[in-house]
Amino acid sequence: MEKPKLEVCLSPALLHLYNTEEAVVVIIDVFRATSTIATALYNKAKAVIPVANVDECIELGNSIENSVTAGERNGHIVEGLQHGNSPSEYGREFIEGKTLVLTTTNGTKLLHMIHGADTIITGSFVNLSAVCDFLVKKNRNVLLACAAWKDRFNLEDTLFAGAVVNTVKDCFDINCDSARAAETLYNSMDGGQPIDFLRNSSHYRRLSAYGLENDMAYCATIDLHPVVPYLKHTELLIHEPIL
Amino acid sequence: MEKPKLEVCLSPALLHLYNTEEAVVVIIDVFRATSTIATALYNKAKAVIPVANVDECIELGNSIENSVTAGERNGHIVEGLQHGNSPSEYGREFIEGKTLVLTTTNGTKLLHMIHGADTIITGSFVNLSAVCDFLVKKNRNVLLACAAWKDRFNLEDTLFAGAVVNTVKDCFDINCDSARAAETLYNSMDGGQPIDFLRNSSHYRRLSAYGLENDMAYCATIDLHPVVPYLKHTELLIHEPIL
Repeated sequence: MEKPKLEVCLSPALLHLYNTEEAVVVIIDVFRATSTIATALYNKAKAVIPVANVDECIELGNSIENSVTAGERNGHIVEGLQHGNSPSEYGREFIEGKTLVLTTTNGTKLLHMIHGADTIITGSFVNLSAVCDFLVKKNRNVLLACAAWKDRFNLEDTLFAGAVVNTVKDCFDINCDSARAAETLYNSMDGGQPIDFLRNSSHYRRLSAYGLENDMAYCATIDLHPVVPYLKHTELLIHEPIL
Repeated sequence: MEKPKLEVCLSPALLHLYNTEEAVVVIIDVFRATSTIATALYNKAKAVIPVANVDECIELGNSIENSVTAGERNGHIVEGLQHGNSPSEYGREFIEGKTLVLTTTNGTKLLHMIHGADTIITGSFVNLSAVCDFLVKKNRNVLLACAAWKDRFNLEDTLFAGAVVNTVKDCFDINCDSARAAETLYNSMDGGQPIDFLRNSSHYRRLSAYGLENDMAYCATIDLHPVVPYLKHTELLIHEPIL
């Protein structure tokens, strides 16, 4: 039987080169959108609604009962919003039962660029194994889509893509140089921790300047939150396990 | 003293994210344009004129005395042109004193997309050390620009960029995740030969189907042709050594 294909897209500016029709698309924004999304849903948020800009975030927050609006730019909570992009803000005692309306620089924008996919899910190290298990059981073509930084290639999203490739490669037909490069990056860690590899990345340096080292260590921790967030209409919810 | 910057652009579709003004831009199309260019000039071609399309190639070939037109698509010489893209076609006995008018799928197109640069040069493994030496002596901002494959990231151009980063990094300020990833790929060879790393690349598979394995082994051989091709108006010529 023919295996489904798996490809890796390194930047939203390259998305037009890939066919997402009927595929499972994994949105990857390790620092920090897709780490925060997995955290909030694992901690029983009712839903996470990703929005592309601040105005939409405020408007939606006003119209939804028991909601929290969240978004940062340059390490600070955006004026008019209530919370930031840090996963540490979304513990169970705070977020349980609430709807998180979230805008971020890269990840939520990419999510809205995907059209015609069978399923859109979000991935980060915190839900690595759950994502891999989902992809294998779905048995469909996969695009791992890195959110990057303002369209620039970044290490953390690519490293996560490499971790997925390394885990699921026997179940897919992979003829994609981006996937090979991502896996080579992952293998270069040689059993080390992702955060050690990522300390020299542009984004780590940027967020360190805001004192967010703990956030990044959290985002790079494997399998803290074994859930698969998927997009249902406009909301991200936890996908039921596929048996 | 502040060091100049070095960045790596992984695809022409990302070129708009980089500032090439007053920079040295290295066009990289390992399989095979920039390998063939170095070969022809090393073998005393009078000049290589890179052109974006076949019509221009034929027209220019007709207007220049003692010229050779060259271009392939899908592994075959394009109708109306005289030669292919293989470096093996451009031995000294054939190309000495002639002007090579060359069109290729990716490299020559990228070259025409660069604006405002101080100097545009071409790089491949065959002239790796000459390129590195040039960049260090020029002491200006550098963009290593991968030609990629129809805008898709490729391994061979990125691996070459990584080889350059690895060689010159002490002389530049590098805060670019693409450069870090490229160098990690290069280091993952662990002293091995580029061609061994590249046998699993998309382009290797594509060109192998046309029986071009020897071509690719040639293109991945380090320092066969220690020249620095640079663009002067519309022609690529050998740059004088910088003392």
